[in-house]
Amino acid sequence: MNIIKPSTIAGVMELLPEEQIVFDRFKYIIEEKFKKYAFLPIETPLIEKDEILFAKGGGETTKQIFRIDSNSKDMSLRFDLTVPLARYVSEHFSNLNFPFKRYQIAKVYRGERNQKGRYKEFYQCDIDIIGNEHLSVYNDAQLPAVIYEIFRELNFKDIQFHINNRKLLNGFFESLGIKDTTEVLRIIDKLQKIGEDNVKSLLKEINLDEKKSQRLIDFISDKSDNKSLLESLKNRCDKELFNEGLDELTKVYSYMLEFGIPDENIVIDLSITRGLDYYTSTVYETFIKGYENIGSVCSGGRYDNLANNFSKQNLPGVGMSIGLTRLFYQFSQLDLLKKFEENYLDALLIPMNEDCNFYLIDLLNELRDKKIKADIYLEKGKMKKKFNYADKIGVKRVVIAGIDEKEMGKFSLRDMESGEQIIVNKEQLIERLKG
Amino acid sequence: MNIIKPSTIAGVMELLPEEQIVFDRFKYIIEEKFKKYAFLPIETPLIEKDEILFAKGGGETTKQIFRIDSNSKDMSLRFDLTVPLARYVSEHFSNLNFPFKRYQIAKVYRGERNQKGRYKEFYQCDIDIIGNEHLSVYNDAQLPAVIYEIFRELNFKDIQFHINNRKLLNGFFESLGIKDTTEVLRIIDKLQKIGEDNVKSLLKEINLDEKKSQRLIDFISDKSDNKSLLESLKNRCDKELFNEGLDELTKVYSYMLEFGIPDENIVIDLSITRGLDYYTSTVYETFIKGYENIGSVCSGGRYDNLANNFSKQNLPGVGMSIGLTRLFYQFSQLDLLKKFEENYLDALLIPMNEDCNFYLIDLLNELRDKKIKADIYLEKGKMKKKFNYADKIGVKRVVIAGIDEKEMGKFSLRDMESGEQIIVNKEQLIERLKG
Repeated sequence: MNIIKPSTIAGVMELLPEEQIVFDRFKYIIEEKFKKYAFLPIETPLIEKDEILFAKGGGETTKQIFRIDSNSKDMSLRFDLTVPLARYVSEHFSNLNFPFKRYQIAKVYRGERNQKGRYKEFYQCDIDIIGNEHLSVYNDAQLPAVIYEIFRELNFKDIQFHINNRKLLNGFFESLGIKDTTEVLRIIDKLQKIGEDNVKSLLKEINLDEKKSQRLIDFISDKSDNKSLLESLKNRCDKELFNEGLDELTKVYSYMLEFGIPDENIVIDLSITRGLDYYTSTVYETFIKGYENIGSVCSGGRYDNLANNFSKQNLPGVGMSIGLTRLFYQFSQLDLLKKFEENYLDALLIPMNEDCNFYLIDLLNELRDKKIKADIYLEKGKMKKKFNYADKIGVKRVVIAGIDEKEMGKFSLRDMESGEQIIVNKEQLIERLKG
Repeated sequence: MNIIKPSTIAGVMELLPEEQIVFDRFKYIIEEKFKKYAFLPIETPLIEKDEILFAKGGGETTKQIFRIDSNSKDMSLRFDLTVPLARYVSEHFSNLNFPFKRYQIAKVYRGERNQKGRYKEFYQCDIDIIGNEHLSVYNDAQLPAVIYEIFRELNFKDIQFHINNRKLLNGFFESLGIKDTTEVLRIIDKLQKIGEDNVKSLLKEINLDEKKSQRLIDFISDKSDNKSLLESLKNRCDKELFNEGLDELTKVYSYMLEFGIPDENIVIDLSITRGLDYYTSTVYETFIKGYENIGSVCSGGRYDNLANNFSKQNLPGVGMSIGLTRLFYQFSQLDLLKKFEENYLDALLIPMNEDCNFYLIDLLNELRDKKIKADIYLEKGKMKKKFNYADKIGVKRVVIAGIDEKEMGKFSLRDMESGEQIIVNKEQLIERLKG
């Protein structure tokens, strides 16, 4: 038979089982925390109608959409979980209760060019809270509280939430006489990447004079501690939008503390803008101290209206998203996954011959019911081959039974690391395997 | 703005959150049992190269493949989890240990015509055990043991495993002088659907004489109990293949009992063939007593070689699969999901005014850390609106705090069903919410 070389398409992450167990553990931790904070699960189909996916018109992302080759050419793979959420909330509006808190952990698809750490298929872990007409600003503090717990559980305690408010920024721009705020947001979003001088040149190109440029840069670069910074912003600017933003930012900050995030994990950072995204007030980015170079591990913000393409209802919302596939890739590159590895098996049972199969299956059934992760090796072969298998799967304890053990009603328990082998009865065996 | 009617593509299952919770619970139970039996997780990309998916040539299923509209037209969505498994095992062969026990619970895609209960996107929950060159017949008994535990946990104790062996069937066909065994398998697979007379006509069409037809039908229709049936098959036929099949069937049956499946849940059923599928010895179908009309809820069998398109290695395997989406649809049609519904929330906390927000958030943090599923309602509005929300989400207990409660350090606990409201301190509250 003609053999086809087995390979995945380029630009996808496919893991070996031992890595997959770690990945699944991450996913499980994230989901459990989402549930703990009373977010509800939804699961939307991977394929959406093109009229839904392209509703906002052709941005950068829509160029990367995987279209389905059907006669009618009217469906494609989702490129994020936000557009499907907007469609879902609009479609099921009358059956949902608002504020509607939902999570979705699922794969999305983008025809990214092949490069390391960029994937065509990747997991997004999204939480959003959607209001009907109104949504209190306190919700903006709940999301980082969930994320904080997730990273703490993942043993990254040094997570830093950089928060800002676009109303405050836009109000400040207004006070400088800047009209094209979108363009300015886009430019200052690059500050960290391209540095102050380059930002100044770009601001000059859009006709902002040097003095105002400097004031703008001084404003967004203020690294005072949270409380001093908020204090110094009071009466800083007489624009209504600015003070509305300041009030929101102050509330979000104090509620983040109240929801249990320590002050040292919060950075009010006026340079955070989330660039071209559709956010309208609160914006967040999240960094891990010591690993800032991997970029934001969780971002999001508040938007005025989720679903203006699909619904006449005004549905304000706030959301955050973890890009799990990319995060997992980065952690693995930094060799940070080792500590999450776990044995999927506590013990492997090896009958010395077929006559002992039932004797060990009886034990197996009992171990499994006692939540001991056990399996049995029932293949034919010499003991050497069987131990070889135990070695390869990395199991630490092997339980062996031959005619002798069976007649005595006992078991040989072998420690695969030390090579030590002892004879035990069932109670002793269970005790040792549980310990 | 132009409003686009929000809707999914046709032929997909999209659930409301309360249904999704039940669906997720099914998925969780299945996964936990797969893990308990030491199956390893793998996750393959949804998109595969066409040369992989079409490797076996164009069967019925390949006509339903969703192709990706790319310039090179060389990738599509998977239509099952078996072809990706074959590709995975071949690609990662040197990094896997055999027997390789894997599970995958994931969506697959088929361009089915729109009809009730048929989905374009649906979950398959697959377990397979793959050997390298050899795989002991005892593995064939492990799979139904997992499935038995799953359905028991789902409260369907009356599950019936119908098992058979194709070698035994083919050996019997040989003894009747039948050469085209595939055609005969295809015909007798229809017995239940079209009845004995129609099967006889079809057998006549392929030139099987009436006497042999009758012998064949008598053979596959034998409804003796398992032990008598196996006994009666001994010395029934002198074909080697028949006796090899009988030996395997006998072993699989006795090991199923040994793995904990009661005899009354096993039916040795010589009419089970799995039609045109690629199985070579053991075959299974699974029915729920009283609900036979929904068809087999879990099917599978043993195959000689998983990956002859992708690998020179001979990789025999055995697998079973639950079609979860279809099963969930059927259970919901039969109104069997009610008992799985659960409250996603034990208590909703409602501050009477903003001054009490922090007082109740402190409580919320504590309740959540004590594993009580709680949430807080922080939206503005009258108490009536707040209670209305509590009503709609179906939460049974509401905790209210106003200035009075806050000053006393107490809480009002309201039972939403009886309307009874009492004042309690924190310890009493926690006790009641836990109870």
